Order: sequence, then C-alpha cells, then structure tokens
Amino acid sequence: MTSDLFACIEAGGTKFMLGVARGDRRMLRQHRLPTTAPEETIATAIAFFATAEAELGRFAAVGIGTFGPADVDPTSPGWGRIVDTPKPGWSGTDLAAPFAARFRCPVGFDTDVNAAILAEHRWGAAAGADVATYVTVGTGIGGGVIVGGMVIHGLRHPEMGHGSPVRHPRDPEFAGVCPFHGACLEGLASGPAIQARWGSPLSDLPDGHEAHEIIAFYLAQLVLWQQAILSPSRVVFGGGVLATPGLVARIRAAADRAAAGYFGVDRLGYDALIVPSALGGEAGLLGALALAMAAR
Amino acid sequence: MTSDLFACIEAGGTKFMLGVARGDRRMLRQHRLPTTAPEETIATAIAFFATAEAELGRFAAVGIGTFGPADVDPTSPGWGRIVDTPKPGWSGTDLAAPFAARFRCPVGFDTDVNAAILAEHRWGAAAGADVATYVTVGTGIGGGVIVGGMVIHGLRHPEMGHGSPVRHPRDPEFAGVCPFHGACLEGLASGPAIQARWGSPLSDLPDGHEAHEIIAFYLAQLVLWQQAILSPSRVVFGGGVLATPGLVARIRAAADRAAAGYFGVDRLGYDALIVPSALGGEAGLLGALALAMAAR
Repeated sequence: MTSDLFACIEAGGTKFMLGVARGDRRMLRQHRLPTTAPEETIATAIAFFATAEAELGRFAAVGIGTFGPADVDPTSPGWGRIVDTPKPGWSGTDLAAPFAARFRCPVGFDTDVNAAILAEHRWGAAAGADVATYVTVGTGIGGGVIVGGMVIHGLRHPEMGHGSPVRHPRDPEFAGVCPFHGACLEGLASGPAIQARWGSPLSDLPDGHEAHEIIAFYLAQLVLWQQAILSPSRVVFGGGVLATPGLVARIRAAADRAAAGYFGVDRLGYDALIVPSALGGEAGLLGALALAMAAR
Repeated sequence: MTSDLFACIEAGGTKFMLGVARGDRRMLRQHRLPTTAPEETIATAIAFFATAEAELGRFAAVGIGTFGPADVDPTSPGWGRIVDTPKPGWSGTDLAAPFAARFRCPVGFDTDVNAAILAEHRWGAAAGADVATYVTVGTGIGGGVIVGGMVIHGLRHPEMGHGSPVRHPRDPEFAGVCPFHGACLEGLASGPAIQARWGSPLSDLPDGHEAHEIIAFYLAQLVLWQQAILSPSRVVFGGGVLATPGLVARIRAAADRAAAGYFGVDRLGYDALIVPSALGGEAGLLGALALAMAAR
C-alpha cells in the first residue's frame, strides 16, 4: 500500500514546528523545538520523525516551509539551503538533504509564506481564488503569491516586506527597523517596528491609539501595490500582529480609500478581497503538509 | 488548408493600429487610424480587414490588445468590452463581438500591455523568463505580468501605474496628474506628468536636468515593489518616455540602490533584470498577433 503519511516541518527563526500528518490533514504527532544551532536543530527533528516512522510507518514525503531567504529553485545546485541570513550559523545550511537521506523519500521545500499560501488555497481563505496572496505580519513581514494553483517563485521568491510605502502623515520621522532598508514596510509595520515606536505590541494599545490607523495605512499600501501589479482577487493576512482586533477592518478601509474606486473591486467588495487567514497558527504546518503532498 | 492569417488590432486611446500577419510575424498589411467614435472606428477597421480578407483569404483568428480598463475575463458576460473609461463614448463598447461576427473566427482579447508582455515573452526581451513583467511609460503607465508563459489577469488586470511611490526628496510638492490618485506613479512619472512639471518631454531635457533622476527614481519604485511581490527575473520597459537616452540605465541604478542588495539579483545583475523592450513600437501589434495565435 502506498504511504499516506507525511513529515511536516515549519522551520522558523525562533522555533521549529514538526508534525506527522495524513493527507486528510489529520495531525497524528506534533512537536515544537527552539531553533538553536543548525546541526542540533536538524538532529532533534530527525529523531522525532524517526520515532514516528517506527510507530506509524514510512513517510510518503517530507515537506519543509522555511524562514528565508532560501534557495527554492529546484534547478539550482543550492536547492534546499538557507541563503545568507542574519541568523547566526544558518547561512548555507542544507535543510532538505538530511531529511531526504534519512527517510529516503521526496522532499518539498519552499518558504514558510509560500507554504502558507498553498495551504490557504487548498484548505483555507484563498480557496477558489485564481490569483491570491498571503501576507504575514509578525517579527517580519513576508508573503507568497499563488496563480492558477501554482506558487510563484521567479528569480528567488517574493519578499513582501521590503517595498517602501508612502509615509503616514502622523508618522514622518521614525527611521524604521529594517537593517537593509530602514523604512521599508517591514521596517515600519512589523512587530519590532511597532514595539520600537510605541513600546508595546499593537494588540495592547487602546482602540483609539493612532498606531492602529498608522499600521493599517502601511499594510494597505502593500495591498495597493499588489492590486496595481497583480490584481489579486483575494489577499489573506496572517501572523501575530494580525491578531489585533479590528486590524483587518482597518486595512480594508485604508485600502479602499487608497484605491479611490480603481482596480474593479466594486463588484467583489473589500470585505471579500482582504480576509484573515482561515488556518491561523496551523497555516505553517499545513503548508508544510501541502508541500509534502505536492512533492510525493 | 488551415489558415495561417491573423487580423491584429492594437486599440489605443488616440490611435488604432491594424495589421494582417502570418504566424511567422510577417506583416502583410498595416494601417493606422485615429480613435474617434466607437462605431466609426470599428467600422473603418472592419472595412480594412474585409479588403485584406478578399485579397488574402480567411482569418484564422482576430487578436485585440486594447486600452483599458477592459473586461478580459472570458467567463464574464461583459467579456470583450471596454469598462468605464474617461474616454468619451467608449465606456461599455463591445470591441470583440463585431469582429467575431463579421469574420466568423475566434477573437483573442486582452489589454494592450498584456498583449505586449505576451509578445515580448514569445519573441522579445522577456524570452525564457519564468516570471516577467512589461511596463510601458507614455501617456499613461501600465503593465502586464507573465508567469510560466501565461498572462496574469486576477480580479481584472494589473494597473501598474496606480500604486503610490515614495516621493523623491527634490520633488516634494507636485500634486500629480492622475484624476483618481493624484500622486500615484502615473500621476508623477507619465508623459503628461513630466510635461506638467517641466514643460517638455523628458527626452528634450538636457542630460544634467534633475527630471531624469526623479523619473528614474519613481520608475525604480515600481521595480522594487515588483521584486517584493513577484520576484521577476526580467522587467521590460517600453513606451514613449523610455525613448529618452540613458533612462533605462538610470532606472537600473536607482532600483539597485533602493534594493540595497536584497532580492537576490546579485547573480543576475540589474543590467539583465531591467531591459528595454526588444519589439519597441511593434510590441502592440505583435502582441495582438500573439493573442490571435493563442485564440485560434
């Protein structure tokens, strides 16, 4: 009998989430570990999956949704590796090969956000959309694009947080926290950028605090540029900052204002265009499952 | 014998370019007419193609690359029509049906810029690129995206000119000429925006004039957001403003500066990422040919 068992890895900068799942999304095992040195982290993950394999049987495939930048080009000799990252010790780490070697099965490898849009398209908030994007706002800002069921890679992969938004009139001075670009979107609207300006997560600031409008304004700029460049019919927002009550509604209002009736959203409406993640905290691990299923 | 003859229409806001071509790109007939009232313009085009048909034989298909906004969704009842346009008399005009009815053959219908990226991908500067964009800068600013050989439509179609760039430090005041958004990219960097600021086309301003740097800065913002959202491996620039000597080089330099080493362009280089249109003034009509060939 063909195996319907998948090893799923959500490789994050601070933690790895591991899961063993069936193709029907049932998670049979789950484990969380801190991201330490690459060798140690990978060895712990392999040990977890080896135990699961002994109990449940062989894996059909492994899926890895990883923090980036990563080499996700299957034709590249560097495929499966983390590319230059500020994270100490991880630049050049081959994430895919150790799992392929140990479990002798195909490995699906992509960015965490590409994995998330794949899962949201398969099982969640992007279902049925021909052109959809996923944006996560947390420690960083990232995103993925799906077109006709296929995730876009291009030259490397999207890096949604690193375009430069127009400044909010009440936020003209803050230099931004991105080490590369200062006041790019991630530099202005990520969790650390919010913390740096207001000393608190967005969700802890009172409803009337101007931070809510300012952050929604910046995230709406990304929606605006996505509309200009891609014309998506669905934009899915996830990540820790999006847990802030009312933020999705504020992004909708700000995007609607910025578009000024352009882009043909009238029939659809901004409530249908911009939606919260349906998979929430599961998007990462389910994304890894979708990658594994596609790699089988 | 199957016909290898195609009727090609580049429908512009000020002129229609008509062509009759073989699949090998040979243009056998060509005609240019001013865009007047819809009925008159369409009747003149039909008369031209009817004469060509009498002399050369039946068409395999008609291709129409049009100014927008247009309904390019084949599943929509409004497919083939111009959508609300400021151009008097043209809102709601059905461009595709009269040609389908008269020449009894399939009609390919898309925006002029989607047609252009298709042609540049098939025969020009975007050849071989998995994710490529085309940007035209002239009376307006528009663009198209091709992924894996397929043009992206999404909710409607991209409108590349209508995102908002960060202001150039030496251009803080100009309100912009876009009737919808004021200082969007089109409002700041299109031909009319250049004319409004400096009283002259960009190509007539001396090499040291700050307009060159300012316009390159704005167009580089579009490249930056395309990199953030799509990670293209080729960005093709065309249109009247791009005839300005040195502008492509300035856009490359400004995009490189704005990216600050991000986006993984290092291997490729900005000279290979950002390129001028290879088809130039032919991109529109060849785009219509590509649409016709795809519709056959």
